[in-house]
Amino acid sequence: MDKRLTIALDAMGGDRAPEVVIKGANIARDRHPEVDFLLFGDEGRIQPLLRGMAKLRRVCTVCHTEVAVSGEDKPSAALRNGRRSSMRLAIDAVHDGDASGVVSAGNTGAFMAMAKWVLKTLPGIDRPAIASLVPTRRGESVMLDLGANIQCDAENLVQFAIMGEVYARTVLGLKQPTIGLLNVGEEVFKGHEAVQTASAILRTTSLPIKFHGFVEGDDPWSGTVDVVVTDGFTGNVAIKTAEGMVRLYSGLLRSAFRRSPLTRLGYLLVRSSLSELRNHLDARRYNGAMLLGLNGIAVKSHGSTDAVGFANAIGVAVELAVRGFNDQIIEELRRVSEDQRSPQHVVAS
Amino acid sequence: MDKRLTIALDAMGGDRAPEVVIKGANIARDRHPEVDFLLFGDEGRIQPLLRGMAKLRRVCTVCHTEVAVSGEDKPSAALRNGRRSSMRLAIDAVHDGDASGVVSAGNTGAFMAMAKWVLKTLPGIDRPAIASLVPTRRGESVMLDLGANIQCDAENLVQFAIMGEVYARTVLGLKQPTIGLLNVGEEVFKGHEAVQTASAILRTTSLPIKFHGFVEGDDPWSGTVDVVVTDGFTGNVAIKTAEGMVRLYSGLLRSAFRRSPLTRLGYLLVRSSLSELRNHLDARRYNGAMLLGLNGIAVKSHGSTDAVGFANAIGVAVELAVRGFNDQIIEELRRVSEDQRSPQHVVAS
Repeated sequence: MDKRLTIALDAMGGDRAPEVVIKGANIARDRHPEVDFLLFGDEGRIQPLLRGMAKLRRVCTVCHTEVAVSGEDKPSAALRNGRRSSMRLAIDAVHDGDASGVVSAGNTGAFMAMAKWVLKTLPGIDRPAIASLVPTRRGESVMLDLGANIQCDAENLVQFAIMGEVYARTVLGLKQPTIGLLNVGEEVFKGHEAVQTASAILRTTSLPIKFHGFVEGDDPWSGTVDVVVTDGFTGNVAIKTAEGMVRLYSGLLRSAFRRSPLTRLGYLLVRSSLSELRNHLDARRYNGAMLLGLNGIAVKSHGSTDAVGFANAIGVAVELAVRGFNDQIIEELRRVSEDQRSPQHVVAS
Repeated sequence: MDKRLTIALDAMGGDRAPEVVIKGANIARDRHPEVDFLLFGDEGRIQPLLRGMAKLRRVCTVCHTEVAVSGEDKPSAALRNGRRSSMRLAIDAVHDGDASGVVSAGNTGAFMAMAKWVLKTLPGIDRPAIASLVPTRRGESVMLDLGANIQCDAENLVQFAIMGEVYARTVLGLKQPTIGLLNVGEEVFKGHEAVQTASAILRTTSLPIKFHGFVEGDDPWSGTVDVVVTDGFTGNVAIKTAEGMVRLYSGLLRSAFRRSPLTRLGYLLVRSSLSELRNHLDARRYNGAMLLGLNGIAVKSHGSTDAVGFANAIGVAVELAVRGFNDQIIEELRRVSEDQRSPQHVVAS
């Protein structure tokens, strides 16, 4: 029999909470029968939703609180005033050992600030990063940071590369993932100081990391490398650009299919064949971004996702917990810190 | 009869130069019969290509040089050693008044450095920016900077906003284009200092500029605003991400259409209806990025474009020259500098 695992859910986070969270948990329950849930939020709103879900009720505990962080709250305000919020209590559950991971679709900045405050960063990590899988021509890659740190120095980028590498090995099952540093060109002289220095460190490190070098904005989607490292400002814009472009393309495609009776017939003939495309580019599939570098597993879901997307975010937390992801990162960081005490860590010009 | 106009072409710039340049000029000649061309490059390679193009030969003059800037040259090296290069001579032609604009598909960094060196920036502009049209759900928007300045302060971003506004009025024919500042969220407290301060200036300026506020990475493609302003690092990654995602989507779509005899039939039924989509997202359509903020019209073509794409880049130069685009920017900048001497230019907190 599987060992049981507990995941804490911020039931009040997200555009259509708690409905989407509860329905998502119900889908996840079916996919991960070994998981128990702690649902943090307003019992008066959660219990009616659970009424028709006998199986989910059996594996979940509702922990009541009336406080919820709103999407408009500043991270600092949420941190100060949200000590009894559903988001904070769900994170506390991980800190206290009551849960192996936490998932929230709420305010990203607040979630990041609270998770960092409560769980603390891993030794050797200055700042956590948000990582997610992205679709590529070859399958999937890891991209980070997607918005946790709007300004990053070289050291941050190097830490992201190390964490991203472990993420790709754990989640994508790759033996030796390749790492690329996002830049405005592939030539070594391109880019600002942070990417220049980070590249120099990654090129000369004695760590067993396969550093590809600089990659450009189109590379993450062609799958040039397995891990794309960038600062949170650029990463956030890139991931949203990709989503926006998929929406634009899909909208134009829909119009083209609807133009005439003939095109509608054409659509019927290709419809089932389009399912692979639809599935590969489905934003819900990539929902569930890990906050890397914390003492605990914290996964951020899109605020606007539906139940299937939220279930996928739960799936990310379950997978990382089962695979002991954080232990692997800690081990890797220990090797890095030994490496950095060695003379190789001199920046090449 | 139309007034004649001369455009200088760097015949040796681009992946498949001079072939693509000459063929592109031939297409442009048909579209813009009022234009004469100065072709800078290796006469021994250019003349054989012109042999079959009697009409083009009639409107073009070949200016021989054996020197060409390569794609690998550092901008500083190109500037120092490329004084007799085809790129430099083509830019010189604009400076000397022999041409109304220059188009190159060569090394972007070198083109930028040379154009800035030779043409100088307009009064009130610290740094030029690369601007281009991008496809949106509503039509087209202007986006800048796409890679000229990898680090920008608030003042740069404000200057980009002003130049982008004039560009949108001139090229898109909009009466009062809306301006958005690219950020990681729409809330006023989001982002780093440069976007924060730029936003405060644009919000409080007495200029007749319609500032929408912050926009996110998906907004450029939904057409939330007419002008998207960002630093050259983020803009470069965003534009290449959009291109990469279009390629990924198109590749998946092609596979879906090719799956079986039935899907091939389906494709035949929708094919002509897809032409609008294809046309709207065609990278060649958006080829030709203007180097805004210089004393002269300089347009950068993609290095990998084909003749149709290069002809489009020539079209951008022709249009901007005909519309007296730079005079309009100068006028706008004069108003800004008056505005900035007024007390409104105090940054709100």
